[in-house]
Amino acid sequence: MLDVTRPTLLLNKKISITNISKIKDRADRNNLIMRPHFKTHQSLEVGKWYKNQGIDRITVSSISMAKYFSKDWNDILIAFPVNILEIETLNNISEKCKLGLLVDNYIVLEHLSDKLTRNVIIYIKIDVGYKRAGIIYKNLEDIDKIINHCSDDIKLNFNGFVSHFGDTYNSRSESDIIEKYKKSIMKLSKLSESYKNCEFSVGDTPSNSLVNYYPSFITEIRPGNFIFYDLFQHLIGSCKIEDIALRMICPVVSIYKERNEILIYGGSVHFSKDSVHIDDRQCYGYVYNYENLWNEKNRVGIVKSLSQEHGIVKVENTQNFTIGDLVSIIPVHSCLTVDKMQDFFIEGNKHSIMG
Amino acid sequence: MLDVTRPTLLLNKKISITNISKIKDRADRNNLIMRPHFKTHQSLEVGKWYKNQGIDRITVSSISMAKYFSKDWNDILIAFPVNILEIETLNNISEKCKLGLLVDNYIVLEHLSDKLTRNVIIYIKIDVGYKRAGIIYKNLEDIDKIINHCSDDIKLNFNGFVSHFGDTYNSRSESDIIEKYKKSIMKLSKLSESYKNCEFSVGDTPSNSLVNYYPSFITEIRPGNFIFYDLFQHLIGSCKIEDIALRMICPVVSIYKERNEILIYGGSVHFSKDSVHIDDRQCYGYVYNYENLWNEKNRVGIVKSLSQEHGIVKVENTQNFTIGDLVSIIPVHSCLTVDKMQDFFIEGNKHSIMG
Repeated sequence: MLDVTRPTLLLNKKISITNISKIKDRADRNNLIMRPHFKTHQSLEVGKWYKNQGIDRITVSSISMAKYFSKDWNDILIAFPVNILEIETLNNISEKCKLGLLVDNYIVLEHLSDKLTRNVIIYIKIDVGYKRAGIIYKNLEDIDKIINHCSDDIKLNFNGFVSHFGDTYNSRSESDIIEKYKKSIMKLSKLSESYKNCEFSVGDTPSNSLVNYYPSFITEIRPGNFIFYDLFQHLIGSCKIEDIALRMICPVVSIYKERNEILIYGGSVHFSKDSVHIDDRQCYGYVYNYENLWNEKNRVGIVKSLSQEHGIVKVENTQNFTIGDLVSIIPVHSCLTVDKMQDFFIEGNKHSIMG
Repeated sequence: MLDVTRPTLLLNKKISITNISKIKDRADRNNLIMRPHFKTHQSLEVGKWYKNQGIDRITVSSISMAKYFSKDWNDILIAFPVNILEIETLNNISEKCKLGLLVDNYIVLEHLSDKLTRNVIIYIKIDVGYKRAGIIYKNLEDIDKIINHCSDDIKLNFNGFVSHFGDTYNSRSESDIIEKYKKSIMKLSKLSESYKNCEFSVGDTPSNSLVNYYPSFITEIRPGNFIFYDLFQHLIGSCKIEDIALRMICPVVSIYKERNEILIYGGSVHFSKDSVHIDDRQCYGYVYNYENLWNEKNRVGIVKSLSQEHGIVKVENTQNFTIGDLVSIIPVHSCLTVDKMQDFFIEGNKHSIMG
């Protein structure tokens, strides 16, 4: 076992690869392209595990991330509305790889026509009700304006539509996730009647983990978090505890018998600050003994609060702990935890993310 | 003005230095040692601004941070219960500087006696009700046990007590902060009657920013956040908006007229995820025009949600914005924002933090 002295993030390769296989199989069975989102791991090393399963195209969430992954990948979709201030970097990336850009307004298109030096693929971002980014699915006028502009510009190859069913993150059970997925699919389905032979790319870990049937107009899925999963995904019904491939290992630095709490070295600079509600209390992670790493049966506590470096763990009995012990924690949000830590250990070796 | 193309953190040196001066004056007037907490900035460069004001001792929140700052500082207090797993690093640091350690249990003391190679200063962490770390202020038995052990070990020089009035962070006004400060001081005051001629170090930005009178047994203050302040501190009453020395500059990437919202490139990987409640809504930052940087009068929006890279800003009127604009944002929690970004610009030059 790794000799840990401070908060350390461990990544289970076997679980991660199984998670990839499962969703890849689901995609294959439904004739879907699998274009995984790499914002969760931000790692060239982890990217290789996807390559080994025949995946050849990826999704990223920033132009910096596209630049980083263009070392190893030559088909990249930046699933974030184009930031026109970074056009120079976009031009550099498009020299090296097939680049997909997300557009949800006409003004950006004009900039792209003006400033792009190479051909790119254009996807229209569609909002099916999540209200984060995208053109509302009913707004055919704005959609047509973009498609028409693309047809007049040889550099802008319109390819189809991208949507994120973010609502599934507000679920409380498997059936709830599937219900939300169906509502979003219905909206996209209407759109697909107006735009035949276009790609329709959807992506969110909750629905992509559970849905067994996709209508035929859907061509691609883009989940990201599923490679590691996390406590949040488990609690909404996306995965089992044993599917979660990340653990934060933290030292016990103090014990408070009178309040059944232990203090760990591990705070919001390690985990990030995302939490879940369990029995009306905030929870920042499930706590287990380090000795049973990856085979945890019995939870020994819950992280009840995080400061910058402190974590307070509520336990059943403080007598089970000694100062200097290590505990293993399932984090609430793996994407943000990985981003916070900037590196993780795989089979005893340290790997840094894009930084 | 800096040519910004992606989320970029700016630090105002003049405001920061004024913030240092104000609290340093307050400390001087009360005959208090000022031992600022460096977890907020984590920067050798910013540390120099303190040195220039005659400050020669600092507080940090981890052993790694002590190691980093031991390049420039030779009197460091690690205000976090000792992590005995890092004893080797502690021994290395203690060769270079005067090292203060925080203890709140006896077991750690025995480890220190066994493993330390050099003399250190021991402070007992006292819990006055915040219930994060520390021995409860009434528990003289445990306190005496630690002091007695120190008197038997030449390496462990007991120096006094350290307390953090974390309750002040749950305030809603200046008077509320001062009320909470007074309650905590009362508890420490009782302790001071039993332990004469000991140091009593207290520290939290809210009270240290407002309190004008300290009882004579208090010897030291350790605020940290005050050098930059942030939206949270402003809302609880610690500072004015014009005292806040940090701005995140973010590009506008899309505009949604129908819901009076704009999308910025700037998410939880830039700001962290801390939020405040304003009129029963979550707020992740105040938004201003970049043109009026540091002289903002009129707020143009509020960050209402953050995903990994997306920020949604609620605005009065979307007509005031164009895609490609930059907005200036006051973050909710400066310590975590700095930690997330890992670098900031001071007068046009980029500086990295400890990393």
